[in-house]
Amino acid sequence: MSQVTGTPCVGLVGGGQLARMTAAPAAALGVNLRLLAVDPEESAAQVICDVVLGSHTDFAALSALAENCSVITFDHEHVPPSHLRALEAAGIDVQPSSAALVHAQDKITMREAVEAAGLPTPLWRHDFGVDDLVQVGAALGWPLVLKVSRGGYDGRGVWVVDDEPQAREVMSSTPLADGAAWLAEELVPFARELAAQVARSPSGQAVAYPVVRTVQVDGMCSEVVAPCPDLPEAKALEAQQIGLRVAEALGVTGMLAVELFDSPKGLLINELAMRPHNSGHWSIDGAVTSQFENHLRAVLDLPLGDPRSTAPWSVMVNVVGPRDIEGLPALTEAFRHVMARDPGIHVHLYGKPLRPGRKLGHVTVVSDDLDDALARAHHAADYLMGVIDE
Amino acid sequence: MSQVTGTPCVGLVGGGQLARMTAAPAAALGVNLRLLAVDPEESAAQVICDVVLGSHTDFAALSALAENCSVITFDHEHVPPSHLRALEAAGIDVQPSSAALVHAQDKITMREAVEAAGLPTPLWRHDFGVDDLVQVGAALGWPLVLKVSRGGYDGRGVWVVDDEPQAREVMSSTPLADGAAWLAEELVPFARELAAQVARSPSGQAVAYPVVRTVQVDGMCSEVVAPCPDLPEAKALEAQQIGLRVAEALGVTGMLAVELFDSPKGLLINELAMRPHNSGHWSIDGAVTSQFENHLRAVLDLPLGDPRSTAPWSVMVNVVGPRDIEGLPALTEAFRHVMARDPGIHVHLYGKPLRPGRKLGHVTVVSDDLDDALARAHHAADYLMGVIDE
Repeated sequence: MSQVTGTPCVGLVGGGQLARMTAAPAAALGVNLRLLAVDPEESAAQVICDVVLGSHTDFAALSALAENCSVITFDHEHVPPSHLRALEAAGIDVQPSSAALVHAQDKITMREAVEAAGLPTPLWRHDFGVDDLVQVGAALGWPLVLKVSRGGYDGRGVWVVDDEPQAREVMSSTPLADGAAWLAEELVPFARELAAQVARSPSGQAVAYPVVRTVQVDGMCSEVVAPCPDLPEAKALEAQQIGLRVAEALGVTGMLAVELFDSPKGLLINELAMRPHNSGHWSIDGAVTSQFENHLRAVLDLPLGDPRSTAPWSVMVNVVGPRDIEGLPALTEAFRHVMARDPGIHVHLYGKPLRPGRKLGHVTVVSDDLDDALARAHHAADYLMGVIDE
Repeated sequence: MSQVTGTPCVGLVGGGQLARMTAAPAAALGVNLRLLAVDPEESAAQVICDVVLGSHTDFAALSALAENCSVITFDHEHVPPSHLRALEAAGIDVQPSSAALVHAQDKITMREAVEAAGLPTPLWRHDFGVDDLVQVGAALGWPLVLKVSRGGYDGRGVWVVDDEPQAREVMSSTPLADGAAWLAEELVPFARELAAQVARSPSGQAVAYPVVRTVQVDGMCSEVVAPCPDLPEAKALEAQQIGLRVAEALGVTGMLAVELFDSPKGLLINELAMRPHNSGHWSIDGAVTSQFENHLRAVLDLPLGDPRSTAPWSVMVNVVGPRDIEGLPALTEAFRHVMARDPGIHVHLYGKPLRPGRKLGHVTVVSDDLDDALARAHHAADYLMGVIDE
């Protein structure tokens, strides 16, 4: 692989779009990538040449990935913690470590750790059964949020329930995976959702990206504005501090995204991700150093790049497969219109076949004018999704 | 290759750094790349998965590359014109076409065409032998520039000769390749060298990049400043117009770089390249749309992206293998210093083994301050080349 002596090689677990978007900064830095993917046609396997085929739940596949790698890191958080510990015991450099990553794998472990660190979280309960739901509701109020502690993402494993019978129905009809448990959280009446992203290296260097506003639709990130509009400086700094403190307290390395509620009770931690995150895709086109480059630098324990914005506003809008894909042309068929209408648009596709509700790509507009950026990014995303006939 | 229906595939001839740097925008646009490379360890073959191994002088290899490709294009201009014409005759979409590309392959053909288009060139002569050198010198003045019409690049195939005996010595001792001939040009007393880059699509849409100042060392591009400092607006427009007129007159598609002398006689065309060019590497980090993305868009006949700068100044400095590489560590060993000293630096390495005089990478700094950008870019490049002990 590494025909240039001394070239580092990073092993990436998982062949999704996050791994795919890591290929560009890796090539620029002369860092080799080695990918563990389930299928040779997965998003990242199309653009990373050195692919180990196998599952992230298969220890032998993980070991094969780690061969000749300087470090291994992740496109998702679904590798069994026991496998990660076994890799570490075998002397493999795993970043973030199993001890850090468990906080992104288990929401109960995460809530306990951030509370112990004195960081703000919604009211929450765990270790309860269906017969305890009346007390849980009395403590948190109805409606409340039920979550499965492990395995959920993009809104899966999360339910907003109005009352005890609804909560009982969800819990009774949802089988729990091994090691998973229920937790309940107050439904925070938030004004908006923010994300604070930081990169942190094993040496402990950390940098904070501008705090962004995120909009979720059906539990999936839909729009990101960087920086968050009308966010008082003090609150922006507080959000960055929360990101940095979480990273420090939990020993995170690589990129960390802390999703926050901006609520009447102040900033509250919603979720964590220890990898590049949808809330940071804008940084490819709108920051000095993208989250993908800083993730690589961090896991290689290299000095981190400048996370600041290069322009006043960046808007990222996801391109998600529409409900009805029957007869839709390939996304690239829309290029002619989208690119002719807006020469400044940044289109990012993930090489995935169309499927309803699937993240297929995103578009980013960098501009001096927020309304301009919002309008342009949404138009392009809508058009790529085939929801505009113009 | 193309598991997403309708995804375009671009065939790239040549496995150098220009093809390597095309991988990032291709992945972003969801465009598949197929590469013709001589060696699986070449710069671009490390980061493009679909590689046909073979030579650009082998028609069978070129045909194998073209299979399933929407279009084929180039990392260099060394494909024999007869092969290109045969591909076109077989119905392959070749961009730029053989008829356009010949102007980047043969300096005599180029000079004749730009003169016919009324575009400014240095005084020149061709169709002469060693016994005509006295007359050539009388027409152009001594010293003058001797060039071989075909096959030179990065200063190879170019000699500055002081007098008739020196010229005779060069011509007598240099065997000409098949189809090559001598030309002589006046030595232009230029104040500086500029490059005007444009992208042009088969439909005829064209965009002009900001005009840059280039510095050559030993005939090889060493430093680029975008835009050219202290360039009067009228002269910048004139340079852009020359770029656009060359593209139009010669039927160029994809990226075109026109290297210009800024001389007492005005702007004069030095050389052409019909591909992404060293003078445009700054655009990856400093323009809305990089030259690599616009080359892809152009050869696919998609609408072109905005070529404008995103900041007042971009400075690109090449990282070239130093004369004495004995005992030098790998370039990546310098990352810790370079990145810690300057979090805003953009490092681009080409995955090539160290060799004296070889282009190994480049660094770019984007800044509001030109002196700042120049100092930072040169420091980083020097350090990567191992020429600073600090």
